[in-house]
Amino acid sequence: MPNTVVDDASEPSTASPTPVDITRDDIFAGHEGGKLSVWITAPLDTRRALSIAYTPGVAEVSRAIAADPELVRRYTWTDRLVVVVSDGSAVLGLGDIGPRASLPVMEGKSALFKSFAGLDSIPLVLDTQDPDEIVETLVRLRPSFGAVNLEDISAPRCFEIEKRVIEALDCPVMHDDQHGTAIVVLAALKGACTHLDRDRRDLKVVVSGAGAAGVACANMLLADGIADVTVIDSKGIVSADRVDLHDVKADLAGRTNPEGRTGGLADAMVGADVFLGLSAGTVSEEALATMAPGGIILALSNPDPEVHPDIARRYAAVVATGRSDFPNQINNVLAFPGVFRGALDARARRITETMKIAAADAIVGVLGGELAADMIVPSPLDPRVAPAVAAAVAAAAGEE
Amino acid sequence: MPNTVVDDASEPSTASPTPVDITRDDIFAGHEGGKLSVWITAPLDTRRALSIAYTPGVAEVSRAIAADPELVRRYTWTDRLVVVVSDGSAVLGLGDIGPRASLPVMEGKSALFKSFAGLDSIPLVLDTQDPDEIVETLVRLRPSFGAVNLEDISAPRCFEIEKRVIEALDCPVMHDDQHGTAIVVLAALKGACTHLDRDRRDLKVVVSGAGAAGVACANMLLADGIADVTVIDSKGIVSADRVDLHDVKADLAGRTNPEGRTGGLADAMVGADVFLGLSAGTVSEEALATMAPGGIILALSNPDPEVHPDIARRYAAVVATGRSDFPNQINNVLAFPGVFRGALDARARRITETMKIAAADAIVGVLGGELAADMIVPSPLDPRVAPAVAAAVAAAAGEE
Repeated sequence: MPNTVVDDASEPSTASPTPVDITRDDIFAGHEGGKLSVWITAPLDTRRALSIAYTPGVAEVSRAIAADPELVRRYTWTDRLVVVVSDGSAVLGLGDIGPRASLPVMEGKSALFKSFAGLDSIPLVLDTQDPDEIVETLVRLRPSFGAVNLEDISAPRCFEIEKRVIEALDCPVMHDDQHGTAIVVLAALKGACTHLDRDRRDLKVVVSGAGAAGVACANMLLADGIADVTVIDSKGIVSADRVDLHDVKADLAGRTNPEGRTGGLADAMVGADVFLGLSAGTVSEEALATMAPGGIILALSNPDPEVHPDIARRYAAVVATGRSDFPNQINNVLAFPGVFRGALDARARRITETMKIAAADAIVGVLGGELAADMIVPSPLDPRVAPAVAAAVAAAAGEE
Repeated sequence: MPNTVVDDASEPSTASPTPVDITRDDIFAGHEGGKLSVWITAPLDTRRALSIAYTPGVAEVSRAIAADPELVRRYTWTDRLVVVVSDGSAVLGLGDIGPRASLPVMEGKSALFKSFAGLDSIPLVLDTQDPDEIVETLVRLRPSFGAVNLEDISAPRCFEIEKRVIEALDCPVMHDDQHGTAIVVLAALKGACTHLDRDRRDLKVVVSGAGAAGVACANMLLADGIADVTVIDSKGIVSADRVDLHDVKADLAGRTNPEGRTGGLADAMVGADVFLGLSAGTVSEEALATMAPGGIILALSNPDPEVHPDIARRYAAVVATGRSDFPNQINNVLAFPGVFRGALDARARRITETMKIAAADAIVGVLGGELAADMIVPSPLDPRVAPAVAAAVAAAAGEE
């Protein structure tokens, strides 16, 4: 089910976000005609085959499902079908480029579901950015799929939309930009703390960025028991005295910044053990120099990390980025294929905090003795990850 | 692209709608897990492949589509993607069994698109039967697909829904129960008339049934120049003096029944050259005996034809049914794969009457010298049909 890993030995490790041997022509050629295709599970080339798969045979199956709707899971593809849904409002770092331009990304996501977790997946991009209409559309389409991966929807709309879609549908729903990132970040922190022999709960964490990923990561770290989390948005430290915060950030303000600091990123960084970069911004070397010694820097902005890892290593014991050309790549693909596979395998109706934390544990758990400063999470291509995550998530779902 | 035909020599030709060697277990086993799967067009098993298909490479493609939306046709799968859309309101002969129970049929349809025309296709079944909501949902999903096959939507709602979806979308849209049937029926009449050396335009045609297929067939025969068409619904002959007719039937009443007959099926049948059965009803042997000699009987109800072909042959020179176990099977699969393939190949924005008539001509045209009383249309498994239909439809689209 998972793909075989053939990590290109010929691929140079450079500072370029795209391996230097990949040209623009290579990229466009790789997308010609799209990246997905629908196939049939059995040939339809005889009258017998047609009579089974289509009329008159199919009527028996339809009649059976009409009598017992649960049978739709068994006799259609919906039980393993994830729809990747976007309105094109926050695509990669490109912003609000619309549903059509978002499609290559969503096809890529669907391809990753297949490649890593053996799930079927189709992109559905919506020509509306109205939360009511997005929720309503998915409710109407509900009989067509088994799970919903929300993708590249701008903050703060993404928080409301995800919440409402979860409430409206009786199936697994996850906004990957939030929770996929949060799961892998938690896994990375667990891996780093194990390697450093530190207690995660004592960490002083600074989260730079309060978009979809920043908010979800902060919430997950809090849920995991890390008490000292401070979040910074474009206006500075998210704190209770700010009057410009939308609901989700205001909620976060009440549960973070325990020292009640004010000011900006530099003010938050003094004495921090962890810098978690989830903005499109940068962090100065001066600010990094004020961190507590032996800390952790996760500079996850793509394609340009908040700080180059060569510099970051001067101020931290463990450094990770989102890029494939440096060690410790923090990539959502470590989480979402296995999370959805596990949730669907367990026929879960929700993806819970417990299931997400189980996923994070499973990601690090794969490493065992391979854990090291430059290997706090497995490679995104590691074929052991998705099955391990799926099993852990399904087990956690079963316990709830 | 089309499948290879292996017509089971071992398959017995019997009066049973399902070949006798197919058991209920065979049918359910054939649907286990569904009939479709999504595949990736290239493996994602190296960092290089991931960098091309997903981040960071995909950003180049998204950026290009944002700058020139037409490129979405080239760099995503939408240009060859047909969505099969149903609300489950009129599924096969099973009636309003709902979207979930309709799914095996829609998966089968998608499988036929792949098998016969090499198109990708996904079923989208809707948990609403409100025409406004159905149209609105497809408008919101428009960036996700290339064409819409409406399926198994009850009459008269299907007429309004199809009309409005066509108006709302800039892509090929066809309600197959209407126009797929009409195309194949026209092809069958053309084949029969060629075989009988009769002028189609002189035929006196009785259409039994005024649902989706009956209305569409009557309209297509009229468009093809057949002047004497009489339609019968459950209340009798559709005529201008009826006050119980919805808009679509009232419109038909004004253009059919040129002799102004009143009464029921038996009254319409006197002197008819063609009986076209598209109801779930029957036609009596007495009524058939009043037909003009040397006529044509197309008894298309499934699984039970309006009259058994052995009886029908006593009263007509050419007999066809919808069943695979008799000669002359009239099956929509002769039309829809090629029609959509041709429309998409030509990048047509509409499926026009001219394109449909071209499709009918192409279906009969495949037969050439093989045309015979028991071969007025090709076998549904004939691999020559879809490419011929696609080419004819694309050419007709190009001329318009």
